[in-house]
Amino acid sequence: MAARPDRGDVATYIPELARVDPKHFGIAVIDAEGNAHVGGDGDMPFSIQSISKVFTLTLALGKAGDRLWRRVGREPSGSPFNSIVQLENERGIPRNPFINAGAIAITDLILSGHQPREVLGEILRFMQFLADDPTIIIDEAVAASEQRTGYRNNALANYMKAFGVLDNPVEYTLGVYFHHCAIAMSCRQLAMAGRFLAQYGRNPTTGHRVVQPERARRINALMLMCGHYDGSGEFAYRVGLPGKSGVGGGILAIAPGKASIAVWSPGLDASGNSHLGRIALEILTRRMGWSIFGA
Amino acid sequence: MAARPDRGDVATYIPELARVDPKHFGIAVIDAEGNAHVGGDGDMPFSIQSISKVFTLTLALGKAGDRLWRRVGREPSGSPFNSIVQLENERGIPRNPFINAGAIAITDLILSGHQPREVLGEILRFMQFLADDPTIIIDEAVAASEQRTGYRNNALANYMKAFGVLDNPVEYTLGVYFHHCAIAMSCRQLAMAGRFLAQYGRNPTTGHRVVQPERARRINALMLMCGHYDGSGEFAYRVGLPGKSGVGGGILAIAPGKASIAVWSPGLDASGNSHLGRIALEILTRRMGWSIFGA
Amino acid sequence: MAARPDRGDVATYIPELARVDPKHFGIAVIDAEGNAHVGGDGDMPFSIQSISKVFTLTLALGKAGDRLWRRVGREPSGSPFNSIVQLENERGIPRNPFINAGAIAITDLILSGHQPREVLGEILRFMQFLADDPTIIIDEAVAASEQRTGYRNNALANYMKAFGVLDNPVEYTLGVYFHHCAIAMSCRQLAMAGRFLAQYGRNPTTGHRVVQPERARRINALMLMCGHYDGSGEFAYRVGLPGKSGVGGGILAIAPGKASIAVWSPGLDASGNSHLGRIALEILTRRMGWSIFGA
Amino acid sequence: MAARPDRGDVATYIPELARVDPKHFGIAVIDAEGNAHVGGDGDMPFSIQSISKVFTLTLALGKAGDRLWRRVGREPSGSPFNSIVQLENERGIPRNPFINAGAIAITDLILSGHQPREVLGEILRFMQFLADDPTIIIDEAVAASEQRTGYRNNALANYMKAFGVLDNPVEYTLGVYFHHCAIAMSCRQLAMAGRFLAQYGRNPTTGHRVVQPERARRINALMLMCGHYDGSGEFAYRVGLPGKSGVGGGILAIAPGKASIAVWSPGLDASGNSHLGRIALEILTRRMGWSIFGA
Repeated sequence: MAARPDRGDVATYIPELARVDPKHFGIAVIDAEGNAHVGGDGDMPFSIQSISKVFTLTLALGKAGDRLWRRVGREPSGSPFNSIVQLENERGIPRNPFINAGAIAITDLILSGHQPREVLGEILRFMQFLADDPTIIIDEAVAASEQRTGYRNNALANYMKAFGVLDNPVEYTLGVYFHHCAIAMSCRQLAMAGRFLAQYGRNPTTGHRVVQPERARRINALMLMCGHYDGSGEFAYRVGLPGKSGVGGGILAIAPGKASIAVWSPGLDASGNSHLGRIALEILTRRMGWSIFGA
Repeated sequence: MAARPDRGDVATYIPELARVDPKHFGIAVIDAEGNAHVGGDGDMPFSIQSISKVFTLTLALGKAGDRLWRRVGREPSGSPFNSIVQLENERGIPRNPFINAGAIAITDLILSGHQPREVLGEILRFMQFLADDPTIIIDEAVAASEQRTGYRNNALANYMKAFGVLDNPVEYTLGVYFHHCAIAMSCRQLAMAGRFLAQYGRNPTTGHRVVQPERARRINALMLMCGHYDGSGEFAYRVGLPGKSGVGGGILAIAPGKASIAVWSPGLDASGNSHLGRIALEILTRRMGWSIFGA
Repeated sequence: MAARPDRGDVATYIPELARVDPKHFGIAVIDAEGNAHVGGDGDMPFSIQSISKVFTLTLALGKAGDRLWRRVGREPSGSPFNSIVQLENERGIPRNPFINAGAIAITDLILSGHQPREVLGEILRFMQFLADDPTIIIDEAVAASEQRTGYRNNALANYMKAFGVLDNPVEYTLGVYFHHCAIAMSCRQLAMAGRFLAQYGRNPTTGHRVVQPERARRINALMLMCGHYDGSGEFAYRVGLPGKSGVGGGILAIAPGKASIAVWSPGLDASGNSHLGRIALEILTRRMGWSIFGA
Repeated sequence: MAARPDRGDVATYIPELARVDPKHFGIAVIDAEGNAHVGGDGDMPFSIQSISKVFTLTLALGKAGDRLWRRVGREPSGSPFNSIVQLENERGIPRNPFINAGAIAITDLILSGHQPREVLGEILRFMQFLADDPTIIIDEAVAASEQRTGYRNNALANYMKAFGVLDNPVEYTLGVYFHHCAIAMSCRQLAMAGRFLAQYGRNPTTGHRVVQPERARRINALMLMCGHYDGSGEFAYRVGLPGKSGVGGGILAIAPGKASIAVWSPGLDASGNSHLGRIALEILTRRMGWSIFGA
């Protein structure tokens, strides 16, 4: 990682991400009334990376329901995002859907019996629908960059395949995985897409139900427990909101009943979470009294 | 553990606890107005065990402030409550204050420079003050039983001592630890003692501030992330409230701004948390719309 | 694995190996005078599997010398043959050349800058030269079977690649690895090939030096310490000879200065080593007074 | 540890050992004819520490026979000498008799049903008998020093006690353990005591059989596999003799049928084994052609 005092380090293990200017900062808040408050580079698209895991989990729960939990656990891992140790100790079952191994297993579940291209289209259309914005695209250069260098994800996928946790050919599952991580969105689009989690499962613009209220609550619970890898405890302690980070420097955070929030700052802390993004959310939450642990 | 279908197993590793009738069930809810709703065996005292860790953490934060976090982390451990593996990998620093090693380190911090008897008196008076009930006592038989058989806690304490994480003689620190875990309280008393966490740090009866609102929020965050050992994710997913369990079968749960809740049922699940207690809280939370992840 | 009382279980994770009749038993001893003593199915070829790792290590030491030890350690692993945990804890450096990860790293070193086909030819010719038998071949059906199902080896290779421990494309390195493990040899051929390790580095027929005496000693030391995965201690304790096993049921054992020995019985014990093969070597060593730990 | 370039670092975790002058060097070789070759400080007593484990294992095998292996394994651990991780993963059963946990379990077995003082006397008399020297004593200052600071061994013992692997009170077992580790011997005395392992179980002076030849072989095998903790592979690779090291800087090495050798140099390498001691043995073995892996 490239050293950036104050801002953290930009992820360099995906070559395409290493080129992003660490000085960007964007924020978007969609409140309960549906008003959007956007600041800084809040309309500039960035690579959402692992934040996509929230949405593929939502899709997979829609398809497989609680059957999904046979393949993935729901406990914090206490390990880095790309750890393989836990898999060996627990017969190839990832600890939760938000570490890399878990998200790959979820992707494999969505893929089952379909063509990668078809499934990718479905994921992208789901994002466009949630954000109410048909211009969202996949950044093919990022996807290709990750596909060329993603040895560790390849190891995780092959390892789960050895335990029978994946159904599809490893290269198909990873192809879809690398591509949905390469979706490019702005803070505004991301905060829009997260509204259903803040609004009891409902899209507040259309009034359409995306998921049942209980499912929205449970996805929020998983985000709080596992959304920041081995920095999840720190995020809960300081920010006090369910959130999911990505190595592109984005964080989606949910204040249930109150707001859907997205921030973006490319510099990362030691656990791979946006350094300034977390601080911004900490300040915002305190000012607004939005912590789920008491105003 | 002794098999009890439907109710889970009563903890048997502390001989004194193994004698408790698994059919007990108690509940107490103190709402925002200060009204107590008590049911079943809600007035029968039981061994609060690890629930005491919430209160010793509160005391220790009062004495040491953020200096405390040099000795204990605040991430979920992903390991059983009495695991020692994590300590070896992280130079004797326990992952969080609610696993046994962490609570022993917190006890050692409170003890510093004082006599065990004196410190125990302070902890007990703090409980009596919070619960507004001077009749709360320590069950000496339970403390003695644990002191005789607590080899694993002895291993944890000696291990931390080897890394210089404990200041006091191991037998002093463990003596205080075993005794505060042996405090006996009813659900009513426990729910009363938890009110300050539900009411932004304030004791609603007296109006006295116990801790700053931010500290109450942070203790709640730690309870949610780490309060049920390697079953913390499950508790967040199903119940959606900060909570702390003890192997005596009790659980203290906090609905911020709404209620302090205590349940008791001695049968435990595989992670050592009250089986029926968790189910009761799941039903209550759903009915009342108290989940912190969205009503 | 398929249960075979008394004989252990035939390896089933490589489909092609699962078809072998577990009742085969062969043995060959080449003594210091070069006489061959062959019994049972000692002239029937079987898949040598991991026994090939002794010979690829010998080749790699010839090419890279002690530089090799920058990529692979030489301590027993205390872990199963296909464990990945150790790699995560030690930055992708395999503990020794005889666990799968180590042998893959060694194969990658031999491959460097050459075509897989070319390198495979070199390995095969080395085996034919050592065994003084040009009829030794690679069983393509076994290699193909392993290539189709070798997810765990794929995980190990990708994992090391992520740490920069492998130079070549993963599929090239694994291609060579799967093929040299699929070499088919009889006990007689294997015992012949092992003579240089029993004779201070020299091929006793031709008198040609294969390696320096010190290198022969060191390869023997590595075989004793690491040749039977997490059953290495048991083999040293019971047999007392340097040896290397393969999941095809073969074992090559060396009595320094006295004999090169190969046994074959397809049933495996819990650590993946030939069950009857080990017992046969134990009896033989005791009768002949060949233990390196005292006659 | 205190830095000593070239010689390694003197162990400082036992305060009493930290005072030893790192410049000492002693060696003693007893050959097959019983001749003693002694050089340097070879007649100066030092703390044998873990080398005592070879002799307590011999005693315990005499008392318990193969029943001993229910409590201790015989595989290399792949971990440091005082690791506790392996115990948690394997239900309190130490991997082998030469890591600290294993030697504590062996001590507990010898102790069973006797008084600590009585058992210590027996161990000391066994050493005096083997070395043919009644002047050997226990250094009480070292024993006391270790007893005051041995938190990590206390953790190991309590941990095994929790799993029921120890029968006696922890403080009794550790008392005996710390005292037999504190036996003080010179290289000459140590090499004398090791003769039975080099001479097929027999004391060559008296002609008395100490153990059966097979048992001597097996103890040698265990020394080779596990005698130098996570540096055992390195010792086998470089020296090629069964050996056991102690943190006092001593090493006992056995050339079966040829010699019993003791060296002493207090500076340790990263694995806690005598740095110069190992190098001296490497040179000696090469010169004499004593490697068990081929002359």
